[in-house]
Amino acid sequence: MERIPILKMGKFLLVTIQVDLYDRLALNLEEDLIQMVFKTGAKGVLIDISALSIVDSFMGKIIGNIAGMSSIMDAETVVVGMQPAVAITLIELGLPLSGVHTALNVEKGMALLESRMITGQEDDTTADDD
Amino acid sequence: MERIPILKMGKFLLVTIQVDLYDRLALNLEEDLIQMVFKTGAKGVLIDISALSIVDSFMGKIIGNIAGMSSIMDAETVVVGMQPAVAITLIELGLPLSGVHTALNVEKGMALLESRMITGQEDDTTADDD
Repeated sequence: MERIPILKMGKFLLVTIQVDLYDRLALNLEEDLIQMVFKTGAKGVLIDISALSIVDSFMGKIIGNIAGMSSIMDAETVVVGMQPAVAITLIELGLPLSGVHTALNVEKGMALLESRMITGQEDDTTADDD
Repeated sequence: MERIPILKMGKFLLVTIQVDLYDRLALNLEEDLIQMVFKTGAKGVLIDISALSIVDSFMGKIIGNIAGMSSIMDAETVVVGMQPAVAITLIELGLPLSGVHTALNVEKGMALLESRMITGQEDDTTADDD
């Protein structure tokens, strides 16, 4: 498998990561996602990692990259479905995923994006939905 | 990876299949999906297969099983994102995916489910959205 599918859901894009990202796959994902943001004018990107029980520093870096690129393209990134063990690991690795929003599941992530589109707040980017 | 994540999107469930299904994974998916339909009362199941360039008879059988089970639980199944080559293969294999709706992408699949919920039509199950 060389490509992770990107689904358009209204104003947002949804990516479900189910496999460990290796270099090529990660680069393809970054490129595809930015192209999709450009083509669709999406205002938000949801990255579902509920299938991942392990997130290493490489994955953390890729998520950070995606958030940075999307931000330049005027789309916000929300990571959803993070397992508790992954959150523990990320902090222990010293990867607080700054610049990335998080939400417990896709629905809450969408609600977070919708609310941010309405309020148009752009001050802090580490806010967390609960 | 032992489980394919199932995402709840409003009244519907979304499954993105990115890897070849083997026995255990397929059985887990069937079980998880039926449990989710039961727990959430979902009225529709969207199965995204845009990442698959090959669908064999086993995968066709699993999709048929899911559609049958969901139907008993009062939820309709829509397969979305099928690549043209996959459609050709399915027909050549003699697997017309009867009982399963299809749509070109997730958005159209959701629209199809919404329209079917409104009209409440339950006569034919091989209609195709375009």
